[in-house]
Amino acid sequence: MEELIKKPGTVTKSDQMFSDRIADVPRSFIREILKVAISPDVISFAGGLPNRNLFPVEELKVSAGKVFDTMGKDALQYSNSEGYLPLRKYISNYYSVKHGLPVHSDNILITSGSQQGLDLLGKIMLNHSDEVIIEEPGYLGAIQAFSLYRPTFRPIPLLNDGIDTVALEKTLSGGDPKLMYVVPEFQNPSGISYSSDVRLKVIKSLQGKRCFIVEDNPYIDLRFEGTGSKSFYSYLPEKTILLGTFSKTTVPGFRMGWIVAPDDLMEKLLIAKQAADLHTSIFTQMLLFSYLSDYDNDSHIRKIINVYGRQRDAMVKAIERYFPSDVKFTCPQGGMFLWVTLPGTLSSMELFNIAIEKNVAFVPGNPFYTDRRDHYSTLRLNFSCSDETVIDEGIKRLGGSIDELMGKSMSEAN
Amino acid sequence: MEELIKKPGTVTKSDQMFSDRIADVPRSFIREILKVAISPDVISFAGGLPNRNLFPVEELKVSAGKVFDTMGKDALQYSNSEGYLPLRKYISNYYSVKHGLPVHSDNILITSGSQQGLDLLGKIMLNHSDEVIIEEPGYLGAIQAFSLYRPTFRPIPLLNDGIDTVALEKTLSGGDPKLMYVVPEFQNPSGISYSSDVRLKVIKSLQGKRCFIVEDNPYIDLRFEGTGSKSFYSYLPEKTILLGTFSKTTVPGFRMGWIVAPDDLMEKLLIAKQAADLHTSIFTQMLLFSYLSDYDNDSHIRKIINVYGRQRDAMVKAIERYFPSDVKFTCPQGGMFLWVTLPGTLSSMELFNIAIEKNVAFVPGNPFYTDRRDHYSTLRLNFSCSDETVIDEGIKRLGGSIDELMGKSMSEAN
Repeated sequence: MEELIKKPGTVTKSDQMFSDRIADVPRSFIREILKVAISPDVISFAGGLPNRNLFPVEELKVSAGKVFDTMGKDALQYSNSEGYLPLRKYISNYYSVKHGLPVHSDNILITSGSQQGLDLLGKIMLNHSDEVIIEEPGYLGAIQAFSLYRPTFRPIPLLNDGIDTVALEKTLSGGDPKLMYVVPEFQNPSGISYSSDVRLKVIKSLQGKRCFIVEDNPYIDLRFEGTGSKSFYSYLPEKTILLGTFSKTTVPGFRMGWIVAPDDLMEKLLIAKQAADLHTSIFTQMLLFSYLSDYDNDSHIRKIINVYGRQRDAMVKAIERYFPSDVKFTCPQGGMFLWVTLPGTLSSMELFNIAIEKNVAFVPGNPFYTDRRDHYSTLRLNFSCSDETVIDEGIKRLGGSIDELMGKSMSEAN
Repeated sequence: MEELIKKPGTVTKSDQMFSDRIADVPRSFIREILKVAISPDVISFAGGLPNRNLFPVEELKVSAGKVFDTMGKDALQYSNSEGYLPLRKYISNYYSVKHGLPVHSDNILITSGSQQGLDLLGKIMLNHSDEVIIEEPGYLGAIQAFSLYRPTFRPIPLLNDGIDTVALEKTLSGGDPKLMYVVPEFQNPSGISYSSDVRLKVIKSLQGKRCFIVEDNPYIDLRFEGTGSKSFYSYLPEKTILLGTFSKTTVPGFRMGWIVAPDDLMEKLLIAKQAADLHTSIFTQMLLFSYLSDYDNDSHIRKIINVYGRQRDAMVKAIERYFPSDVKFTCPQGGMFLWVTLPGTLSSMELFNIAIEKNVAFVPGNPFYTDRRDHYSTLRLNFSCSDETVIDEGIKRLGGSIDELMGKSMSEAN
C-alpha cells in the first residue's frame, strides 16, 4: 500500500499567493492516519476520541427542548464575545469547588473548544521568532495552533514525573520565552503527570521571567487513581493561563471550551475572539449550561473514569502479555493515552505500515516533536474508545507486528 | 456624559508581552456603542441584529429533537474539519438553484459564521504589508479580521452603483493587491449594490492580476425589490472566494457560515480551520441541516423580506419627514442598513452625543474607514430590528438631534 507516513512539516510548496505562516504549519499527520483507520475492520488506537457510548444523548435532548422553551429567541440572536455569563459562573464555581482555585468569571472567555484558546493566545502574544517552551513529546494541537504565528519552539523533554527541570533551567538561562505550554495531568501524548516537586521547580525557574505558563488540562477530571498536585495557577495566578474543555467530560461535538487569563490579556483575547468568530454559538452554550444545571455531571464523569480505567488496565495487561519485554510504556493514572518506546532503533513508522496490514492503527511519535528530526521509536496508543475485548485483540495484533519488525530488523542486520 | 466615541485604531499601549499584530486591530467601536444602546429606553439603529421576532424557534426545537433521536451519538462526537457533508451539499444546491452558480461541495468549508471565513482567509494569505482592496466605507468585521494579519489597506470609495472603478484602476496600476473584499449586494454599512456595468469593469480591471475577489454576500437573499446582477463568481470562478452565512436568513446565534474557495486555497483553509477550532459544532450543523430539509426556508425568507421591506419604507419616509432636506441618504433595495451623509462639516460624532441624550443610537461613520482620518459627516442606520412605529419615533428624535447640532454649529459660526 501507499506509504502514508510523511515527515511532519513537509508541506505543499508555497507560492507567493499564500502567507509565509501557513507554510510553517505541519500537515496534519493524524488526519492522514485517521483516513486509513476509518475502515470498520481496523482496530484504531490512533484517534483521541472519547467513548461515544457514554455521551448523555437523552439528557441533552431534554435540555435542548428546555432551552427552546425557556430562552427561545434569546438563544438564537447574536450574543456577546465573552460567552454566556451563567456558563462562565459555572466554570468559576467548578474551579473553586473541584480544584480550590479562585477564578473570577470576568477572567473566563468561552471558546470554540480549547483549540480556539490556543489560536487566540498565539494570535495576541506571538511575534515571529518569539520563543515558546513546549513539552517533548508535545500536544499536536498546540504545535499546530502556535506554528501559525511562527514562534521558535524550545522543546524540553518529558521525564517520568514531568518536564526535565534541568533542561528547562538551561533553556531559560539562554533565552526569554513568552509562553511555556504544559499539559500537567495525563499529558497527550505521553500520559505523564507532573509531580509536586517538578511543579515547584518549574515555578522557581520562572521567577523573574516574563514567561507565562499555559496550563492545559483537558483530562484533569479523568483520574482513575492516585491524587493530583496543585495547579500552577495556585502558585502564580497572575502568570498562569488556564485552558479547559467540556469535550472530555461531556461531549466533544459541541466544541465548547474556555480560557482563563489575567485582565490585560483578557482585553486582547476578547478583541481576537471577536475578529475570529464574534462569539461561540449562544444556543449551544445555553444548552450545555442547562444540562450541567439539571443533571449530575460529576456522576457522569465517574462513569467515564470507571470505563476508561478498565480500558487502561486491559491495555496495560495486554501489552505485558503480547509485547516483547524490552518495549517500554507509560502507565497513566488517568486520561486517554499511553506512550510506547520500542527498543533500539526500531522505527514506529515501519511498524505502522506493518500494523495497518493487520488492521490495527496507532500514531507514530514524529508529529509530537517540533524539531522535525525522526523520532523512530515512539508511538501513542489511545485506550478511551475501544472496549476491553477489542483492546486485547488490537494489542495482540500490534505485538505480532512488533515481532515481525524485530525479525525483519534482525535479518537485515545479518 | 462621558465621551464614548474614540478614534478607531486607538488601542491600549501595547508592551512587548503582546504581538505586534494585536496592536493594529481597531478597538471595537460598535461594541462600545452597543453598551450604551442596551438600555430599554434607547431606540437603537446602531446594531446589526436580525429581527428576533422572526426566528423559527418552534421549528428548530422539533429539528433538534429529531437530530438527537436519529443521529444520536454521531451528533456529539468529534467530526471532520470540512463540515457536515449533507449541509455542504445543501449549500452547493442553493448556489445552483438560487444563483445559477456551479459550486462543488468539495469547495465549501463550513465556518463558525462567515466572520471565521475572513479570519481563515487572512491567515492563509496575508503577510505583513500585503495589499488588500477594501470598500470605503467598508464592512467593519472584515477590517478587524484582516487587520490582525497587518495588511496595507487600499480603500476605494463606493459610488451609488458600486465601487469607483476609476479609482480601482488607478490603485491596481500602482500596486499588486492579493485580495479585493467586496459586499456587492446591499453593502454593510452603505446599503449600496453593484450594477452589472460596475461588475464588468471590475472583472476587466482584475484581468492578468493575481488579486482574488472576496465576494461576501450575507444579505443577497434579502431583496425587497429590483433584480440582482450576476455574481463575480460567474465570471471568474477560479479567482473568486465566496462567503456566506445562515445568520441573516435563519438564525445568527448558531454561528454558521461557509467559505467557497478553489482547491489550492481550500487545502490551506482546512489546515487553518483545524488549527483554529478543529471543526464547527457538528450537532449545530446537523440541527440546521435537519431544519432546512424539513421546513420551507424560502417561505421563511419571504417573511423576513416582507417585514424588513416595510421597515425600510418606514425609515425612508421618516427621514424624508424629519431630517433637514440637505441630509443625503441611500435607499437600499434590500439588506438591513442605510447610510446617511450630513451636510457640510457637521460631525456624526457630535450628533451621537446629542442623540444618545434623546435615547436614540446609531453608528457614526468612522469605524467603517481604514485610513483613520475623521469622517465627520457619515453614519449608519439599521432598520431590521425595530418595528415601524419605533422607527418613526427614533428618526423623529434623530431629526431633532440634527436640528440641534445644526443650530449649535450656526451659532458657533456666528
